[in-house]
Amino acid sequence: MKEFFKVKELDQVFKYIPDFIQVENERVSLPETTGRVLAEDIVSGHDLPDFSRSTMDGYAVSASSTFGASEGNPAYLTVIGSIAMGESPGLSIGPGETCRISTGGMLPGGSDSVVMIEHTEIIDKTTIEVYKSVAPGQHVVLAGEDIKNGEVILSSGMMLRSQETGLLAAFGKENVNVFKKPVVGIISTGDEVVPVDQKPGPGQIRDVNSYTLSGFVKTAGCVPVMYGIVEDDYHALYAKCYKALNDSDVVLISGGSSVGTRDFTIDVLSNLPDAGILVHGVSISPGKPTILARAKEKAIWGLPGHIVSAMVVFKMVVQPFIEHIAGISSQYSDRAMFTARLSRNLSSAQGRTDFVRVRLNKNDGKLWAEPILGKSGLINTMVKADGLIKIDTNTEGLDKGTIVEVIPLLI
Amino acid sequence: MKEFFKVKELDQVFKYIPDFIQVENERVSLPETTGRVLAEDIVSGHDLPDFSRSTMDGYAVSASSTFGASEGNPAYLTVIGSIAMGESPGLSIGPGETCRISTGGMLPGGSDSVVMIEHTEIIDKTTIEVYKSVAPGQHVVLAGEDIKNGEVILSSGMMLRSQETGLLAAFGKENVNVFKKPVVGIISTGDEVVPVDQKPGPGQIRDVNSYTLSGFVKTAGCVPVMYGIVEDDYHALYAKCYKALNDSDVVLISGGSSVGTRDFTIDVLSNLPDAGILVHGVSISPGKPTILARAKEKAIWGLPGHIVSAMVVFKMVVQPFIEHIAGISSQYSDRAMFTARLSRNLSSAQGRTDFVRVRLNKNDGKLWAEPILGKSGLINTMVKADGLIKIDTNTEGLDKGTIVEVIPLLI
Repeated sequence: MKEFFKVKELDQVFKYIPDFIQVENERVSLPETTGRVLAEDIVSGHDLPDFSRSTMDGYAVSASSTFGASEGNPAYLTVIGSIAMGESPGLSIGPGETCRISTGGMLPGGSDSVVMIEHTEIIDKTTIEVYKSVAPGQHVVLAGEDIKNGEVILSSGMMLRSQETGLLAAFGKENVNVFKKPVVGIISTGDEVVPVDQKPGPGQIRDVNSYTLSGFVKTAGCVPVMYGIVEDDYHALYAKCYKALNDSDVVLISGGSSVGTRDFTIDVLSNLPDAGILVHGVSISPGKPTILARAKEKAIWGLPGHIVSAMVVFKMVVQPFIEHIAGISSQYSDRAMFTARLSRNLSSAQGRTDFVRVRLNKNDGKLWAEPILGKSGLINTMVKADGLIKIDTNTEGLDKGTIVEVIPLLI
Repeated sequence: MKEFFKVKELDQVFKYIPDFIQVENERVSLPETTGRVLAEDIVSGHDLPDFSRSTMDGYAVSASSTFGASEGNPAYLTVIGSIAMGESPGLSIGPGETCRISTGGMLPGGSDSVVMIEHTEIIDKTTIEVYKSVAPGQHVVLAGEDIKNGEVILSSGMMLRSQETGLLAAFGKENVNVFKKPVVGIISTGDEVVPVDQKPGPGQIRDVNSYTLSGFVKTAGCVPVMYGIVEDDYHALYAKCYKALNDSDVVLISGGSSVGTRDFTIDVLSNLPDAGILVHGVSISPGKPTILARAKEKAIWGLPGHIVSAMVVFKMVVQPFIEHIAGISSQYSDRAMFTARLSRNLSSAQGRTDFVRVRLNKNDGKLWAEPILGKSGLINTMVKADGLIKIDTNTEGLDKGTIVEVIPLLI
């Protein structure tokens, strides 16, 4: 019998993450930034806003002119003008004076707050009654209150969301440096695998893994490139890997990583230029027969052939590597994880990390994670799943009601 | 004083959702399906797998041939052959017989299970010892065990994830009908708003809303089209809205929906072809001055000008409408919501729904939602936020530790 894998713990596998180099930068225009990884620190070039603005429609005042005002005892103020939007007020108010201002208008000199229009009454062309006092700073955003000049507002390694794109817009950053999207080559192996447009004969199955992995790669912000199906042949697999390695930042091979008579993956990976096998087996379930090699400073993964195993290994083992290669700082890579209560007892073998598919249900205002049990060849279990939970290597099992972290399987 | 809005409850607003028509269908190829909304029911055309397969490297057996086998008392089986991958076995085994099989191989007639290679020892060319018994069905996936022929496997209105793309691949669905991506026109208004490539003068600000809304629209699976900035002028806004309405499925106008002297939005929306104002003010905070109109059977939204308000209203009010228009069934639109514990007491005005920005922290293995307080003009509060929580209209406030639903603000 062939020697079995020298299985590594998941933590040991993750220690290799920093050994892989990050992709290069490129410059993209503002509307393209959402969903990209920032590759420079952004420093504000001015206060935001850079003038004090009204946040209400009403009257700009010095708050002290309204102190004590009430329905029964209104303050009377002299209206000395009206502030046009997008312009310098061109006037200044004194005690007992006010001027009309709209939401977003620039406060005139001498004012520090705004009385809402609902709390005033027009007496005549130059006089209003004010029924409610305001505090200094009320209904205004002061210059620099949002962001100060010279602040680091966004850091390299951050995945930019819509609001970060908005922040770049606020500072006129029309183009920014982002990390390129890693190109991920995907190879399917196996004499039994046929292309999707072909009707499988006896003993054959369609190539599912190329498509699920391609979807996960795209969702992870990378560019998938499918290299099709390679039969179980050393030279054919070598040639395909060699090409994929040249053209991609990461290569995924699915199918050939079991201890089988036709397993050429490990031999091919060992013989690629500058190659070294880093991991040959991981103590996780599903996904034990996972291989990680490095060649030309790039990561090449041998993923299990089982549909579910390949997806789980991508999400739980490969994705943290890809996030690093994509430029994402580790501090930003954990945002999507949340918690739920386990809906039933779950046993687990010690000495390995288990990943369990779960469906999420809301009940009693609480979120419950309901384990979906099923073999790792059954794709329907992943279609039913909303997320994955992890049972650590030293845990024998989890009791019903335990709070577990859920890694979402969303778009 | 101008009559104030006839403010509607959020629930009343959502009652208009079914009144808007969904976008048309288009046919896309398999790799394009991830992230798209399915527009047909998919029925399986055969069992999956359509033959019984091994899930291990080992020996195919009739389980009864191994009953009672143990380390001390192994079963001896006669090896009558080996099964090639991707081919019909071409042999059948009898009691006491076995044949070599690899992961994914097709079970030969007479077998119902597989003994793992680790639990066997080769004695000679035609004999193995088996050290462990197996149960019928063990280490195999039976024909139809994943999915039965004729099952509805995916339903119209479902957002397709990578695993659903994989399921389509398994059944050879090279092209499927999906809903087109809704085109969302985005218009910014306000005399004080300048393009991002321009340095704002006194009282002016850059156009942030076009970019944040564009990002949210893209993240929601739609195609944003920016129509730029319109000054506060009835005819200019009418012309821009008219064009956007012709070219888009949904139109968003940000900026002009406060009760201000320069508010032309409501007049423009009322006068568009076949137009009706459905909502003029919603009892939410932030976001009260939100307008919904229907013209040419399309939704046109007047969003608040404040940066945060515009984003919150998009996410919490507009997005459910857009999901409906995009073809997503309501049963699939709630998957992304999860729960956390409130990290502090939070007060809230009765009679309106409050949306509070929160940062998520893990502590004690639990997920905590920490409210980020700040004015709705401050974009930095959205940059700090990981999600939003909702405080219902009849709730006076929430106590520290209350379990709240969190709507994530992720990519």
